[in-house]
Amino acid sequence: MDRATLHTLLRSFLHEDIGSGDLSSEPLFDSGEEGRAHLVAREPFVVAGVVDVAAQVFFLQNPDIRCRGAIVDGRTVAEGDSLLTVAGPVVDLLKAERVALNLLQRLSGIASLTAKFVEKTKDFSVRITDTRKTTPGLRMLEKYAVRAGGGYNHRFNLSDGVLIKDNHIAACGSITKAVEILRDKVPHTIKIEVETDTVEQVRECLACNVDIIMLDNMGLEIMEQAVTMIDGQALVEASGGVNLATVAGIAATGVDIISIGALTHSAPSCDIGMDWDII
Amino acid sequence: MDRATLHTLLRSFLHEDIGSGDLSSEPLFDSGEEGRAHLVAREPFVVAGVVDVAAQVFFLQNPDIRCRGAIVDGRTVAEGDSLLTVAGPVVDLLKAERVALNLLQRLSGIASLTAKFVEKTKDFSVRITDTRKTTPGLRMLEKYAVRAGGGYNHRFNLSDGVLIKDNHIAACGSITKAVEILRDKVPHTIKIEVETDTVEQVRECLACNVDIIMLDNMGLEIMEQAVTMIDGQALVEASGGVNLATVAGIAATGVDIISIGALTHSAPSCDIGMDWDII
Amino acid sequence: MDRATLHTLLRSFLHEDIGSGDLSSEPLFDSGEEGRAHLVAREPFVVAGVVDVAAQVFFLQNPDIRCRGAIVDGRTVAEGDSLLTVAGPVVDLLKAERVALNLLQRLSGIASLTAKFVEKTKDFSVRITDTRKTTPGLRMLEKYAVRAGGGYNHRFNLSDGVLIKDNHIAACGSITKAVEILRDKVPHTIKIEVETDTVEQVRECLACNVDIIMLDNMGLEIMEQAVTMIDGQALVEASGGVNLATVAGIAATGVDIISIGALTHSAPSCDIGMDWDII
Amino acid sequence: MDRATLHTLLRSFLHEDIGSGDLSSEPLFDSGEEGRAHLVAREPFVVAGVVDVAAQVFFLQNPDIRCRGAIVDGRTVAEGDSLLTVAGPVVDLLKAERVALNLLQRLSGIASLTAKFVEKTKDFSVRITDTRKTTPGLRMLEKYAVRAGGGYNHRFNLSDGVLIKDNHIAACGSITKAVEILRDKVPHTIKIEVETDTVEQVRECLACNVDIIMLDNMGLEIMEQAVTMIDGQALVEASGGVNLATVAGIAATGVDIISIGALTHSAPSCDIGMDWDII
Amino acid sequence: MDRATLHTLLRSFLHEDIGSGDLSSEPLFDSGEEGRAHLVAREPFVVAGVVDVAAQVFFLQNPDIRCRGAIVDGRTVAEGDSLLTVAGPVVDLLKAERVALNLLQRLSGIASLTAKFVEKTKDFSVRITDTRKTTPGLRMLEKYAVRAGGGYNHRFNLSDGVLIKDNHIAACGSITKAVEILRDKVPHTIKIEVETDTVEQVRECLACNVDIIMLDNMGLEIMEQAVTMIDGQALVEASGGVNLATVAGIAATGVDIISIGALTHSAPSCDIGMDWDII
Amino acid sequence: MDRATLHTLLRSFLHEDIGSGDLSSEPLFDSGEEGRAHLVAREPFVVAGVVDVAAQVFFLQNPDIRCRGAIVDGRTVAEGDSLLTVAGPVVDLLKAERVALNLLQRLSGIASLTAKFVEKTKDFSVRITDTRKTTPGLRMLEKYAVRAGGGYNHRFNLSDGVLIKDNHIAACGSITKAVEILRDKVPHTIKIEVETDTVEQVRECLACNVDIIMLDNMGLEIMEQAVTMIDGQALVEASGGVNLATVAGIAATGVDIISIGALTHSAPSCDIGMDWDII
Repeated sequence: MDRATLHTLLRSFLHEDIGSGDLSSEPLFDSGEEGRAHLVAREPFVVAGVVDVAAQVFFLQNPDIRCRGAIVDGRTVAEGDSLLTVAGPVVDLLKAERVALNLLQRLSGIASLTAKFVEKTKDFSVRITDTRKTTPGLRMLEKYAVRAGGGYNHRFNLSDGVLIKDNHIAACGSITKAVEILRDKVPHTIKIEVETDTVEQVRECLACNVDIIMLDNMGLEIMEQAVTMIDGQALVEASGGVNLATVAGIAATGVDIISIGALTHSAPSCDIGMDWDII
Repeated sequence: MDRATLHTLLRSFLHEDIGSGDLSSEPLFDSGEEGRAHLVAREPFVVAGVVDVAAQVFFLQNPDIRCRGAIVDGRTVAEGDSLLTVAGPVVDLLKAERVALNLLQRLSGIASLTAKFVEKTKDFSVRITDTRKTTPGLRMLEKYAVRAGGGYNHRFNLSDGVLIKDNHIAACGSITKAVEILRDKVPHTIKIEVETDTVEQVRECLACNVDIIMLDNMGLEIMEQAVTMIDGQALVEASGGVNLATVAGIAATGVDIISIGALTHSAPSCDIGMDWDII
Repeated sequence: MDRATLHTLLRSFLHEDIGSGDLSSEPLFDSGEEGRAHLVAREPFVVAGVVDVAAQVFFLQNPDIRCRGAIVDGRTVAEGDSLLTVAGPVVDLLKAERVALNLLQRLSGIASLTAKFVEKTKDFSVRITDTRKTTPGLRMLEKYAVRAGGGYNHRFNLSDGVLIKDNHIAACGSITKAVEILRDKVPHTIKIEVETDTVEQVRECLACNVDIIMLDNMGLEIMEQAVTMIDGQALVEASGGVNLATVAGIAATGVDIISIGALTHSAPSCDIGMDWDII
Repeated sequence: MDRATLHTLLRSFLHEDIGSGDLSSEPLFDSGEEGRAHLVAREPFVVAGVVDVAAQVFFLQNPDIRCRGAIVDGRTVAEGDSLLTVAGPVVDLLKAERVALNLLQRLSGIASLTAKFVEKTKDFSVRITDTRKTTPGLRMLEKYAVRAGGGYNHRFNLSDGVLIKDNHIAACGSITKAVEILRDKVPHTIKIEVETDTVEQVRECLACNVDIIMLDNMGLEIMEQAVTMIDGQALVEASGGVNLATVAGIAATGVDIISIGALTHSAPSCDIGMDWDII
Repeated sequence: MDRATLHTLLRSFLHEDIGSGDLSSEPLFDSGEEGRAHLVAREPFVVAGVVDVAAQVFFLQNPDIRCRGAIVDGRTVAEGDSLLTVAGPVVDLLKAERVALNLLQRLSGIASLTAKFVEKTKDFSVRITDTRKTTPGLRMLEKYAVRAGGGYNHRFNLSDGVLIKDNHIAACGSITKAVEILRDKVPHTIKIEVETDTVEQVRECLACNVDIIMLDNMGLEIMEQAVTMIDGQALVEASGGVNLATVAGIAATGVDIISIGALTHSAPSCDIGMDWDII
Repeated sequence: MDRATLHTLLRSFLHEDIGSGDLSSEPLFDSGEEGRAHLVAREPFVVAGVVDVAAQVFFLQNPDIRCRGAIVDGRTVAEGDSLLTVAGPVVDLLKAERVALNLLQRLSGIASLTAKFVEKTKDFSVRITDTRKTTPGLRMLEKYAVRAGGGYNHRFNLSDGVLIKDNHIAACGSITKAVEILRDKVPHTIKIEVETDTVEQVRECLACNVDIIMLDNMGLEIMEQAVTMIDGQALVEASGGVNLATVAGIAATGVDIISIGALTHSAPSCDIGMDWDII
């Protein structure tokens, strides 16, 4: 993650939560009063965002806060494990606490769900990837969490990848025509992916030599047929209605990539608390 | 929601998803080409964010997009119901689609979960409220969704309400001392709330006349005892470990408010799609 | 004051005054040339903003500037007293000088006027508070200055307190109706205040149990009558036409709070200069 | 005033006062409910900021608000005169009211004080000008108000004019040296002004042909002597300790410009209210 | 180009040139005074940025300015041709003039130089593309101008394409190793390009199946050898030391893409003036 | 250059080039891996922007990057000379490289072209100045480069200097009228310059005592006549059609200033590379 972009984002989150100041803590603590606390897992999960997000939140709130004992992102923690120890001015620890926890809980939730999908497909040579179904404003962070969980990223936004969908095909008359126009217009560094619903569309994609063929909401049997037909001439991405129960079956068809919106839009938050040392 | 703040936020979300342009759509559609599509529920849920969020996203992408047939926030929709019809330049509809859907799915998810808690407690005179456990960057929107689902809002951030927690108490020596200091420092317009774990603490709160007493993670029996002791001298807020199975029991103890972090950190996304009219 | 918010604000002030550079100083001083100067009171007054504002301005202009000998905010200084000694690159001292002085003069002016009102009412148990009649863009700073002068703050803005005025009452038909609607809508953490002109309105407020009753522009006798009637059932705030001649009389009626727009919109600037040591 | 810059500024002021919304008004008025109100002078004064500031605030809050009957800036109004009539959605009128009034009161205060100085010197060919002693963040607006009151502006900031003060002179050894260096460095479009304390310094300024000579805190007699000596070879600016009692005497010495910090740092606010038509 | 991003950019350019207002024009023209002017070519060139940039500048300065008779980007104009007619308030036409011209001259310069390279290579099936050697802050606009001139774009920035250079290779030990690591890490939507200096490196690239092979500063003969060896298994991009004299020879080697930094860093400005109708 | 303004600008440039991260470098280098590289001249030129721009870019990308051996701006370098040595984390050196080079090449180009004009006129007492024909967004930097090359700056923008052009004259009826109005309106610190085409206009300018007379596109003979007529009563600026072949002749007429748009709109980029030490 790019540091400058990240810091701008985290600063706006701190501002959202702190407003014009912490009415409860500022009058009760001298600005010099120091404390120490631990971010602690209240359940087992896969961690994301400890050093690169939570610790940064504390640092941005006050550069004098020290962060120690950070768990490496991607590791699995048990209930009671400390993820990070923070020490410094109590007022600033309290001001940064909620933002750090809110982010860590969400990102670890995404990493944990991703890790489950990765585990289910570990016997296949397949990538689990995210989609553009991320929380608005958090895309960079959520895509990081997917990677921390062992997954991979799909394109970042509309400007760094081409994905031809049914609307585009309808507008041009055919996949062939749409590919032709786009291949002539977009940078040569950009891959062209086409969303297909039928084996006929897959065949048309092969004929016009697309880079990635998305099999959208296809049944397993047709998917297998498509993979056989494609036979390495393009990357194959399965998409639509993927869940923990179905993902292994989909992976078994031989697709290269399985993209899953649920990784980012439906991952349950992990339970993490902040425990203070007696001061 | 304040319109200027909202628009700034939505513009940044569009920028995140569009980047420097839509590589797939811009070369395929003339800027004048018009289309029409419907945001359609793929399952039943309680709606939040149709006019005030999704329609604004389309408007900000291009003021020439017309929005019709909007469902009123807070209504329950069935599978197949149209939430909003949008018509205008196809390129702009496609550019705004993902951001509008991502927001609508998340906000409706929050409204729907809130509505379930409200339904479970409908026989009691109790408020279901959110907490500060919102998605960083989306607090204003998520708190709006809680209201749309029939819930209420807790304080917006650290600067518009006082909540005395164990750290504050430890720092001052007693609830009484903390309340005394804060009452002397914060604006007279601010209520003072204290988080309590025991009946003894509740008694101390009453003695120093706090405005709101939070019963944190207490058992039902102790909670009832506390409510009886408080007897209308302060608002009573229950918090901690609330779920759909336990909420009615908690409400039955007579508390005034039940605050639930899960409303915003664990609401599952609703399934909403965008169906295009044949053009 | 929240540091991040403050720094953003102070940076914009420096930019306003410096523009694209200091045409007079940059060609005359090497960037390494050091100097020392003192911010000196040219008349007696109560100080506000030395460490938290003026010193921050110098720090933001150049972190290498050292600030020493700062007078604590709220103290009364005599003519000739040094408020702060600054040392560092001369060019940066000169660039920050005007912004630091402009702020210090204004904030000390507010603190000094506030202190006068506080002094006049020192025999009564009453709070002197500000209003929303602050200089646009400076609210956080001016409210800080009021506290430095021994005063208290009223609500920060329209979103962290309810104040029902005649328009609201007219729109709903009665105070009772307005209170009923608002009590059902706003967070339980928010106090409800009502502006009243007559004893009848005060009575209605008591009947619907409002948290704060504002007595707006009432005569002393009626005010006393109102205070007697309220008798501790709500906080009582006097407002309107308060000046140094009238404030003690108002305090004597037994009100809890006296809010005074003049604290921020009409405080005369204090005279402060910057004296350089011979270099 | 440049419109884009102005609008950015006014939007930030609205955000400061409104926060995340108007808790009192939003629940009580339908967004379609319309009203009408008048900004009314509660005392006589010279107006500044009606069309270009106050009306813009209402427009930015909601472009559907109509502004009528605006008094032209620079006019003198009597108690009871309407400055502006605003009509539109009540909620938005209420949200914009305080910011519009706070600005109008302050700017009219500056225009009124400026007009008094202008009146006192109307028999002389002299300009009354402001200084850089403006409220941080409001310089563009306050300089506008000075013009509305019949005054003139001094340089806008450190980058659009050279003013050589004692520090600069000390650093270079002499006025002559400082002028020499600066004349060689700054754009040929920039005038060079020197602050002088003695007749000897004035003589040195003439010798090196500066554009403007500031007579700083000089007695009337010495000032006259200086004006005689300068005899039109440079513009002459008097500065320091100017008030309504002394300004005519200073003007009588024949100086071209009198610059007065008090115009912007000590102008008392004008009393303006907002009266609503019965709705 | 994405409109919101573009407008933010153009607004900052207007602010840079206008500052706090146009000292020369504002006092001389009533805000209602209207005029009309033509942007006119003073030499022949290929146009870029008329509707999408220059007209937007005028629109942003004042939405009341009407733009007519715009030449389509990519067209060649002769000396004396009008590119755009603008009509509206004179003050706003004057304020927007310089920014509009500065942009139009630069972008047309880039389009014209691009068109020359395209013309030189028109007998070959090759793309002329830009690089990241654009003017900081203007990348989106300059890449647009390259397209207007008949060229194509390379990757937009470091995050939407992989280009493995000698540093990366040195760090990993070999091209093969670098490709292996990156292929495992970057999104499947991203093409992998490698910069090569020798035929051996080209062979290694083919062995590890990279998407694009850049031939950096190679002689024509070696380039031909490389193209023959690659034989359609990867896209071939020539780079380094390309100019109008050498480009056709490079194209004749059979490469697919020729990337040229000079398109954006060394295109001479076109001469364009603004002629006013007699008013 | 003002540091805060500069840093904001440079940060936006880094963001433009880096996007959401460096896809090629981040996976290949540990964040702790260090390297060292030299910015090296590939041809002789006059340097601008080494310490104040390029080194700042590296610093902003990562404050841990050390910059050593910087060439002083304004110096002439030979092919192969190192301008700056940078050492620190390799990933950050790679991320900052392109922005630093793009700026340094452009700014040195401007300084070099300026130096050529200065050299051509070294026998005359004349200033070479820039115009407002700068690259949008880069004015502050480009004006700095002009100074580094031995040139001078003209006004920064429309708000810090008056330049009366034919439109203004036409609107008022005469130069005399325009000058009269503007002299009465603009700050006394602002010089008044008039653009003239004929000797008659020059005479009118003298009659109304303007500060600077611009001779626009005049022949050498008429220019000389004008200079003779003006005879030191105003600064004389030549403008229009100035190039390296004509500039000495123009200087020989005795004008004080020659302003040249080409300095900033047509300076060829200098060739600068980044050479890495073997790591």
